[in-house]
Amino acid sequence: MREILIVGIGSGNPEHMTIQAINALNKADVLFIPTKGAKKVELADVRRDIIRRYVTNPQSRTVEYAVPERRSSDPSYMRSVDEWHAAITRIYEELFLSELGEDGIGAFLVWGDPMLYDSTIRIIERVTAAGRVAFDYSVIPGITSLQALCASHRIPLNLVGKPVEITTGRRVSQSFPLASETSAVMLDGEQAFAKIDDPDAMIYWGAYLGTVDEIVISGRLDDKKDEILATRAAARERHGWIMDIYLLRKGADFEQ
Amino acid sequence: MREILIVGIGSGNPEHMTIQAINALNKADVLFIPTKGAKKVELADVRRDIIRRYVTNPQSRTVEYAVPERRSSDPSYMRSVDEWHAAITRIYEELFLSELGEDGIGAFLVWGDPMLYDSTIRIIERVTAAGRVAFDYSVIPGITSLQALCASHRIPLNLVGKPVEITTGRRVSQSFPLASETSAVMLDGEQAFAKIDDPDAMIYWGAYLGTVDEIVISGRLDDKKDEILATRAAARERHGWIMDIYLLRKGADFEQ
Repeated sequence: MREILIVGIGSGNPEHMTIQAINALNKADVLFIPTKGAKKVELADVRRDIIRRYVTNPQSRTVEYAVPERRSSDPSYMRSVDEWHAAITRIYEELFLSELGEDGIGAFLVWGDPMLYDSTIRIIERVTAAGRVAFDYSVIPGITSLQALCASHRIPLNLVGKPVEITTGRRVSQSFPLASETSAVMLDGEQAFAKIDDPDAMIYWGAYLGTVDEIVISGRLDDKKDEILATRAAARERHGWIMDIYLLRKGADFEQ
Repeated sequence: MREILIVGIGSGNPEHMTIQAINALNKADVLFIPTKGAKKVELADVRRDIIRRYVTNPQSRTVEYAVPERRSSDPSYMRSVDEWHAAITRIYEELFLSELGEDGIGAFLVWGDPMLYDSTIRIIERVTAAGRVAFDYSVIPGITSLQALCASHRIPLNLVGKPVEITTGRRVSQSFPLASETSAVMLDGEQAFAKIDDPDAMIYWGAYLGTVDEIVISGRLDDKKDEILATRAAARERHGWIMDIYLLRKGADFEQ
C-alpha cells in the first residue's frame, strides 16, 4: 500500500526541523514540492534547502507541482476554499497514481505544522474519501510561526492560568479583547490590529520569522501600530510578498 | 556575561528534538535537570535520554536540582503560583552563581515549548529583574503536546477559517462551546470534559503522548467520556502519574 507522510518543516529556519521530520523525509521515495507565485518561489527555496541539508537517501527524488490559486473573488469564502481544496484533491490523486509505485512512500513538506491553518490533512482525507487511490498516511508535527514569534520575543503565549485564542484577521477585530486576554492572529491580510482601539493592548508582531529577513516589533498597540503598518508595507514591497503574525495581549500575570 | 538557553525538547518523543535545540544543548557548559516526585522522575529520564542521544560536547555537565512543589492547598491559585515562582527564582539565582562561570552557558530542557503553559521564561525574567546575577537569555521552541495530540489523531487543530481556544480544565466547563468551536485543554486535573453536556461535541484525547505508553481515544464526547475516565484512572494508577490533553470540537469544515 502507498504511504503518505505529511511532514511539518518549521517556519523558515531550517534548524526548526525535528529528528522525526528528517527521518520521515529520508524514508520517502518522492518529496512533493508545490510551486507557483512569488511567495511560493521563496517557500519552495526553503524546502529545497531543507532537502539539500537533511535528505541523504540517494533513492529519493523531488517532484514539483503547480498549486492553483484560491479564487478570492468568490463572494463566499467557505465555498471558494471548498472548491480550491477539491481542485488540489484531484492534483494529489494524480500525483499518487503517476509518481508513486503501489508500495511507494511520498512526503509533503508542510510549512509550520500540518495541524495549524494548513489544509494538507483535510485534502488528504478527501483523497481517501474519493477512493480512487489506496494509501495510508501519518502526520509529523513541526514548529509553527506562532512558536517562532514567541521565541523571538521571548514571551510566553499565555498569561498564568489564562486561556489563549488563535484566530484570523477577519475575526480578531470582532472578538478582541472580549473573548480572550491573549489573541494570536495567524492569517491577516487586512491588518486588523490597526483598527483595534484599546489603550491597554500590547502587540508582539513578527514577519519572515526564522529567516535572515526576520523583523520583530513589540510594544503598546497604540504606540506601535503606525510603525508596524509602515514596516510591513515597505517589507512587502521589497520582497514581493509577506508572511506575518502577531499576538495581542491585555493584562498581566497574577492579575485576578 | 552568562548566557541562559531555554530549550524546548518536545513532548515525550526524543525525535521531537529540533536541530536548533540539539545545537543549543551542545553549546551549553551546564545542562540543568529538575528532579522530584514520580512524574518528575520519568520526565528527568526523558531529559537524560535526550542528553545521551544528542549531546556530543565533552565539556558539558549535568546539574540536577530539586524543584519545590506548588502549595496547592493555598486558597488563592494566583498567589500560590506567584510564591512558587518566587521560590524557583531564588533556586535559579543560586544555580547561576554557583554552577556557571562569568561567561558560562547554561541550558534548561523544557518539556514541550517554553511558550505554552510553562513558566521558565517568566521565572528567568524575575531573576533578571532581581538584579543579583547578570546574564542574557534566548528561547528555542519545541513541539508541544498539543501538536503531538493532533499528529496522533491526524486532525487539524482548527476548522477552516475558524478560531481555536487553548485553555485550562478550570475554565473550559464555563466557556465551551460558547467562546470557540474548538477548545484545546492543556491543564486539567479535574476531568472537566466529563461535566460537559453537549450531544454535538467531539473529543480527541491523548495521554503520555509521544512515548511508548501513548494512549489516544476519540469520538463523540457523550459516547467516549466514560471510556476516557476509566482508561485515565487505570493508567494513572499504573504509572503513578499522568499527563493528558484533549481537544473538544463542535461543527465541521465549510459550515457557515
